Amino acid sequence: MYDRSTQVDRSADSINFGIGQPDFALLPHALMSEVAAERFAEGDTELLNYGFPQGDGRFRWALADFLGRGYGAAVQPQQLMITAGASQALNLICTLLTRPGDTVFVEEPSYFLALRILQEDHRLNAVPIPTDEYGLVPPAVEEALTRHRPVFLYTISTYQNPTGRTLSENRRQQLLALAEAHEFLIVADEVYHLLDFGTPPPDPFAAYADSGKVLSLGSFSKILAPGLRLGWVQTSAQRAGLFAASGLVDSGGGLNQFTSNLVRVALEGGGQKAYLDSLRRAYGQRVQAMDAALHRHIGDRATWTVPAGGFFFWLTCSDHFLAAASSLPAGSAPGRFDTTDLLDAAAGAKVGFLPGRRCSSVGGLGHCLRLCFAHYGIPEIEEGIRRLGQVFDSFH
Amino acid sequence: MYDRSTQVDRSADSINFGIGQPDFALLPHALMSEVAAERFAEGDTELLNYGFPQGDGRFRWALADFLGRGYGAAVQPQQLMITAGASQALNLICTLLTRPGDTVFVEEPSYFLALRILQEDHRLNAVPIPTDEYGLVPPAVEEALTRHRPVFLYTISTYQNPTGRTLSENRRQQLLALAEAHEFLIVADEVYHLLDFGTPPPDPFAAYADSGKVLSLGSFSKILAPGLRLGWVQTSAQRAGLFAASGLVDSGGGLNQFTSNLVRVALEGGGQKAYLDSLRRAYGQRVQAMDAALHRHIGDRATWTVPAGGFFFWLTCSDHFLAAASSLPAGSAPGRFDTTDLLDAAAGAKVGFLPGRRCSSVGGLGHCLRLCFAHYGIPEIEEGIRRLGQVFDSFH
Repeated sequence: MYDRSTQVDRSADSINFGIGQPDFALLPHALMSEVAAERFAEGDTELLNYGFPQGDGRFRWALADFLGRGYGAAVQPQQLMITAGASQALNLICTLLTRPGDTVFVEEPSYFLALRILQEDHRLNAVPIPTDEYGLVPPAVEEALTRHRPVFLYTISTYQNPTGRTLSENRRQQLLALAEAHEFLIVADEVYHLLDFGTPPPDPFAAYADSGKVLSLGSFSKILAPGLRLGWVQTSAQRAGLFAASGLVDSGGGLNQFTSNLVRVALEGGGQKAYLDSLRRAYGQRVQAMDAALHRHIGDRATWTVPAGGFFFWLTCSDHFLAAASSLPAGSAPGRFDTTDLLDAAAGAKVGFLPGRRCSSVGGLGHCLRLCFAHYGIPEIEEGIRRLGQVFDSFH
Repeated sequence: MYDRSTQVDRSADSINFGIGQPDFALLPHALMSEVAAERFAEGDTELLNYGFPQGDGRFRWALADFLGRGYGAAVQPQQLMITAGASQALNLICTLLTRPGDTVFVEEPSYFLALRILQEDHRLNAVPIPTDEYGLVPPAVEEALTRHRPVFLYTISTYQNPTGRTLSENRRQQLLALAEAHEFLIVADEVYHLLDFGTPPPDPFAAYADSGKVLSLGSFSKILAPGLRLGWVQTSAQRAGLFAASGLVDSGGGLNQFTSNLVRVALEGGGQKAYLDSLRRAYGQRVQAMDAALHRHIGDRATWTVPAGGFFFWLTCSDHFLAAASSLPAGSAPGRFDTTDLLDAAAGAKVGFLPGRRCSSVGGLGHCLRLCFAHYGIPEIEEGIRRLGQVFDSFH
C-alpha cells in the first residue's frame, strides 16, 4: 500500500555491506525519546518557532563545547553555521560559492553521492586527485594546480569514505599552505572524525577555521541519527555570517531549528557523548571482526588496511586474483575485470558490497570495493564475509 | 552569553507588524509534544534512520489525504517530494532546473526573501510582472514573453505575500495555457492556500500537478510550526522522482525524515486539521480587528482590500497623503516619498511594518507597506494600528 519509508530495503536473509549506514539496532531511540520529552517540558516555544538563521544560539554553544572537547581544539559558536546535514552543507556551499562549469578538486576515490552533488546537481568540473594510504598526495595537487584554478578542494580527510584512510598531519599542513598560496578553499567533510576506535586522528581541518580557507562539514548522521538531518559548517565567523545571510537560510529562519533544540538537550546532558562512546566501542569490535573474517575468507586475493575509525574497509583485488578472474568467462574482457562483475554472483550468495567504480569520478577503480562494517553486528559480519569469500572462490 | 535563538527579537513594548510569522502564543506546543511521545512509543527506528529520498512513504500517504480534503482535489502520494520547507523547495528547484543568468518571472510585488533566493543565491534574472487586485495580469505576462524565455514563473497565487490578494480562477487558466504554449513552468508558492477565513479560494495550482507544467510548494510553517522546517513540492510523479534522484536528496536519505515522522501522527490523528481550523478562526478575527482599526486610525490616507486568508494587509498610500508627506522636511525629495521614510517615526512610536520597497524586485513600491495580522493578538493589533495612525499624523 505505501511507498517505502526508509532509504534501503534490508531483506531478511541478505547481508549487504554496500549499505553505508548506521546499524538500525544501534539507533538512539531511548535517548532521543527522553530528550524530546525533556525539551517539550521546558515549556518555551523556541523549538517550534523560526530560528536564528545561523542556528539556535544555545545549541551552537552546546555544540561548540562538545566539538571542542572531541577535537581537542577550541571551537567558537560564531564559527558554526547549522545545516540540515553535511550533504545540505555541501549543497549550500556549491550554491553560494560556485557556478556551473567551475572546477573543484576531489579525491580519487571519493564519496559517490558527494560526486553526484558536485558533478550532476551543480554541474561542476570535478578534477580527481590521486590518494594513497596517507590520503591526498600533495605533489599531485600541486601538479593539478598548474592546469586548474579550483574554487575548492573537497576532502574526506579522516576515516575517508570509501577508503577508511586518514590524511596525515604533514599533508594537512601542505594542503593548507597550497590553499593559501593558490587561493582555493578546503571543504573538509569531517563527518567521521569523532569516530576513532582508540587512537585520536590528527587535528581536523576545523581547527583552522579561522584561516578563512577552511569549511569543515560535520553531521549528527554518523554520531547520533541520520534521520535528524542535522549538521554544520565550521568556518570563519565572517563566512558563517555570510551563509546565514543568504536568502534560503534567512527565509527558513535557520535550517533545522526544531531538531537542533532536541539535540541540544542530548549535548548538554551528556547523552550524546555517552552514545558516541558506545558507538566507538561497538564499531571498534566490528572492525576487528571484519578484519579477521577477511583474512580467513579473502586472504591474499585482496589487500586492505584496517581502518582506525569510521565506517569502511576498502579492498583492492590483488594482481593474481585479477589475472585469474579476467581469464574466466564470467569476467569481462581480459585485463578489464571490474568488481561490478561480482555483483550478480554476490546477489546469488546473498551478500552485497559497493563496487569501487561507484566511488570514482572518472569511471576507474574497477579493481576495488567498499565494505561497511558499521551496519551489521558481528555474527552477520562473519557470515557475510564468508559468503563474499565464496563469491571470490567462484572467480578464481 | 548566547547568540539569539529565534529569528526576531520581540521587545516587550514594541508592536512590529513587519514580522511575518505566526504568533508565538499560538504555536502548537501541546500537540507536537503529544505526537512526539506517541511516535516514539511506536517503537520502530524508522524515524531516526535515513529515509526514502522522496519522503517517508506513510507520511506522504497521510499528507496526500490531508491535502486532498483541504484542496477539494485529489492528491497522489507519488506527486509529493518532501522538503525541508518551501524555501528549500524553491532552492532545490533553482539548483536542479536553472543556471545563473537564466530568466524567471516574478510578481511585482513578491515575497522579499524569495527574491533573494532567486536573484542573489542563484543569480537569476528576475523579470517583474505587474499584479492588480486579482493577482498577476495575464496580458503583461504575454507581453513579457515576447522579450523573454523564462524557465519558470514564480507566483504566490493565494493570499499573496505581501498583498494578501488571490489570483482569480480565470487567470489561473490563462497562465496554465501560456505555460503550455511557451514551455515554461509555474512555480506556485501555495503556503497560505489552506488559511482561508471561510470562503474557499479557487483550486490551487497543485490540482494541475500532472500537467507537467506545475510545481506547487507547500509548507507546515504557516499551518503548524515554522521551526519544523517541513514542506513539500507537489508536481508530476515523474518530476518528483527526478528531484528525489538528485545527489543532495539521495545523500541525505530524504530531506526531513525525523520531523515528518512526528507530523505524520498529527495528520493521521486529526490534530493537524483541528489546529489549522483553530488558526483560521483566530486569524479571521484578527483580520477584522485590523481592518476596523485601519479605518479608525488610517482612514483615507491609504487604501487596502481585506484579505480573505493568509497573513497580510497591503496598504497603498493615497495620493493626497503622498503629496502632503512629500512636502514635509521629514520626507525625502518631493514626489519621491517612500514608506521607508516612516520607519524612524514608527520606531519612535513603537510600531513596525515592512516597507513596500522590500517587496519589489526593482526598487519600486515606495508608496506601499505590508502589515502582518497573524503575529499579534487583537489588543496589540488595535494598539499598534493606533500608533501607526500617529505616525501618519506626523507626516500629514
